[in-house]
Amino acid sequence: MSKEHANREENYSQWYNDIVIKADLAENSAVRGCMVIKPYGYAIWEKMQAALDKMFKDTGHVNAYFPLFIPKSFLSKEAAHVEGFAKECAVVTHYRLKNDPNGKGVIVDPDAKLDEELIVRPTSETIIWSTYKGWIQSYRDLPLLVNQWANVVRWEMRTRLFLRTTEFLWQEGHTAHATSQEAVEETERMLEVYADFAENFMAIPVIKGVKTANERFAGALETYCIEALMQDGKALQAGTSHFLGQNFAKAFDVKFTSKEGKSDYVWATSWGVSTRLMGALIMTHSDDKGLVLPPKLAPFQVVIVPIYRSDEEYKKVCDAGREIKKDLERFGVSVKLDDRDTQKPGFKFAEHEFRGVPVRIAIGPRDLENGTVEVARRDTLEKEVLHIADLPNKIVHLLEHIQNNLYTRALDFRTANTHTANTWDEFVEMLDGAGGFIQAHWDGTPETEEKIKEMTKATIRCIPLNNKQEAGKCILTANPSTQRVIFARAY
Amino acid sequence: MSKEHANREENYSQWYNDIVIKADLAENSAVRGCMVIKPYGYAIWEKMQAALDKMFKDTGHVNAYFPLFIPKSFLSKEAAHVEGFAKECAVVTHYRLKNDPNGKGVIVDPDAKLDEELIVRPTSETIIWSTYKGWIQSYRDLPLLVNQWANVVRWEMRTRLFLRTTEFLWQEGHTAHATSQEAVEETERMLEVYADFAENFMAIPVIKGVKTANERFAGALETYCIEALMQDGKALQAGTSHFLGQNFAKAFDVKFTSKEGKSDYVWATSWGVSTRLMGALIMTHSDDKGLVLPPKLAPFQVVIVPIYRSDEEYKKVCDAGREIKKDLERFGVSVKLDDRDTQKPGFKFAEHEFRGVPVRIAIGPRDLENGTVEVARRDTLEKEVLHIADLPNKIVHLLEHIQNNLYTRALDFRTANTHTANTWDEFVEMLDGAGGFIQAHWDGTPETEEKIKEMTKATIRCIPLNNKQEAGKCILTANPSTQRVIFARAY
Repeated sequence: MSKEHANREENYSQWYNDIVIKADLAENSAVRGCMVIKPYGYAIWEKMQAALDKMFKDTGHVNAYFPLFIPKSFLSKEAAHVEGFAKECAVVTHYRLKNDPNGKGVIVDPDAKLDEELIVRPTSETIIWSTYKGWIQSYRDLPLLVNQWANVVRWEMRTRLFLRTTEFLWQEGHTAHATSQEAVEETERMLEVYADFAENFMAIPVIKGVKTANERFAGALETYCIEALMQDGKALQAGTSHFLGQNFAKAFDVKFTSKEGKSDYVWATSWGVSTRLMGALIMTHSDDKGLVLPPKLAPFQVVIVPIYRSDEEYKKVCDAGREIKKDLERFGVSVKLDDRDTQKPGFKFAEHEFRGVPVRIAIGPRDLENGTVEVARRDTLEKEVLHIADLPNKIVHLLEHIQNNLYTRALDFRTANTHTANTWDEFVEMLDGAGGFIQAHWDGTPETEEKIKEMTKATIRCIPLNNKQEAGKCILTANPSTQRVIFARAY
Repeated sequence: MSKEHANREENYSQWYNDIVIKADLAENSAVRGCMVIKPYGYAIWEKMQAALDKMFKDTGHVNAYFPLFIPKSFLSKEAAHVEGFAKECAVVTHYRLKNDPNGKGVIVDPDAKLDEELIVRPTSETIIWSTYKGWIQSYRDLPLLVNQWANVVRWEMRTRLFLRTTEFLWQEGHTAHATSQEAVEETERMLEVYADFAENFMAIPVIKGVKTANERFAGALETYCIEALMQDGKALQAGTSHFLGQNFAKAFDVKFTSKEGKSDYVWATSWGVSTRLMGALIMTHSDDKGLVLPPKLAPFQVVIVPIYRSDEEYKKVCDAGREIKKDLERFGVSVKLDDRDTQKPGFKFAEHEFRGVPVRIAIGPRDLENGTVEVARRDTLEKEVLHIADLPNKIVHLLEHIQNNLYTRALDFRTANTHTANTWDEFVEMLDGAGGFIQAHWDGTPETEEKIKEMTKATIRCIPLNNKQEAGKCILTANPSTQRVIFARAY
């Protein structure tokens, strides 16, 4: 198995695709740009959802569900918003099919044309703020802290599994506040939640920052983001949190009466992460032997593979495996006993290794005699022999250790691939070399940013929060600058 | 609050609608036929999802996700299937908007017309079986036991919140098997899961049976169902499980090689329940004072309402409330302390009563002195004074008791409203009277069934599993019959 997939160095893009496909995470569907998320991939997404959902609820949010469709006229109500999304909208124009009078099959019934077309939601600000108008009258109704788990559609021309698909799954938080300050605090709070999740569950170090005007969400006053660095030196935006000001409240006329009896428009935020995180997870930790999963997001953390020659041995080692499974589960470890008798141990080793299972326990008849098992960890590929009696404690610690090691490894990689460029030549050389995050001075204008993007394909990933202030000269224009920003080529 | 809503006897339909709206479960959206599921309603749905998801996983199923869109030609591949769904399909024809050259706003870009229209999934058999073709080659790949949580769209002309909406949320299981027998067993297993869920979580007694040919799912050889009886004497189909034979395997050419090396088409099932269950839940238990929730599905099982006059009292009773909350949570009870100081206790009592919170605990300064609280149960509206020290045990038992009482009450209602009709006149009289389930003989022909439906609006809800065989005469045609079937008017 491991020989039939691409190597990171030789063909990074093919390596990524091979992992997605051959680790059974996802595949392309018959519908252009839409993916099928396979059970193993979906199980990882479910782990992500559960962790995030708990964090949202712990910070006072509740879930709700809003319509898939958005009337076309709603999109137009916020000028920047429609500008940003109009070019990638799937449009429903009819509501019925009928038998083709000229042959077999079905055709769209021309008599069933909608008066107003419906857009399949690319994001839900407009339909949600049209609803909030009915929910918000008084300061008592605020803050309104709602999240939605949903599918959204953006008609992308070039798609890649998980990273950029026409349909994707995500969550979108939409909150309403009485003051600008509260809304900004919420925007920042959710950025912290995302960073916490990325670092402590996904084991991905991220830089927290704000986007430049060019890269802002369509309709936002400020977009906060977390940026991660992939192994090919390209950046990946892993989550965004938007301060929307009063833009959507004005577009949908959502006002509230304050304690003092004054009427004002409501302040808004929105924030989201998507199945794109699956791409970040894969690209941050995996290696030439396949997927590597952090224990906190692995569908199962430990796989037990029985080694046997006879039916009698099979029964014995499987029985022992079941005991070990039970013991580990009592300690909160999730375990799969791979007792398939249709596949050989070597095949199973390769398969689970490629699928990134954090810990593998192999158990054979000789182990049983000695009261031991062989334990292999996926991150370092190291093996050791452990006493069965010690397993629960040792495995719990090993899993913690793997989780931390993955984070540290990724952080070391990012540190080694974060550079400072002081001249244009340095800048270009770094980009065309190993890539990575490049800290450089920029004159603060959208024009310069745009020009740099055109010349190098590098974008400003973010202006880090609490960024060090430092006088300097823009790498392109040499105009004065007060701080370095983070450049990179990005997904 | 309780005076502003309709009464069950006077206007059942308005009563239902008032509960949905005024208990903050859902509301109509700006998109025709699509609802917004509000946080309180969605929290109940999440409880349902969690319980069902666990039951699916415990029976060996895994979750996955398939595209929202289905190419039009896929729908046509199974003849009965397209016949059943063509008339209610939302159709995506374009993938881009552009600025209206003749004015403001945006229009559909005529240059962005799809070569083949995409249908927003009304159900996913076709897209899933086109995918399974790539997943199934050998008996080793079977059974394939997959479930999907998703939104689906069926363009309904008359919609009602939860009961019939253009977009709804559901789960759809799609399994593949090597033999007909295994597939039938799976179909029956999932029917049992649904019945178990309805009875033990929703506290709704259901009749398990099979549909007649007229009422079968489009593309199925056999449709199993669970049928519940609502308080207005109408039936509600609460879940279906379909044996699809080899219809979809043939339509998408999905074959497998058996252990013996023989090639054959795969056998299929599909099964689903939807947000329609919310309608069943509301209509089964609620009363003229609003929603009544079974404890196992209540977003919070207990609400604590502090009674106070001064700030000092407020602090004291809230502190005591927090202690009680902690104690109860330690016993696995979910509790909300309603410490809003913007509303009076009377308002809170009415609100929580209307929203169906199973148990209310009121606590005031005098209670504190006595070490007691007042406990009110929503199902019977009975109140009692309990010692704080006894609360955890008593509340745990009370919640169990309420759960069982709701089931028993619903079962008693169904028993009292299940009748046997031996003549046409009896049949019609029963239907036009209190309604309910009517056991009657039917000659087994689709024509008679259709005629009865035209004449009375009653349909055959199901032929119960293990139905008693009994010679008789069809109530309409007097032709011979071997068993009674269940008739009712239905949602």
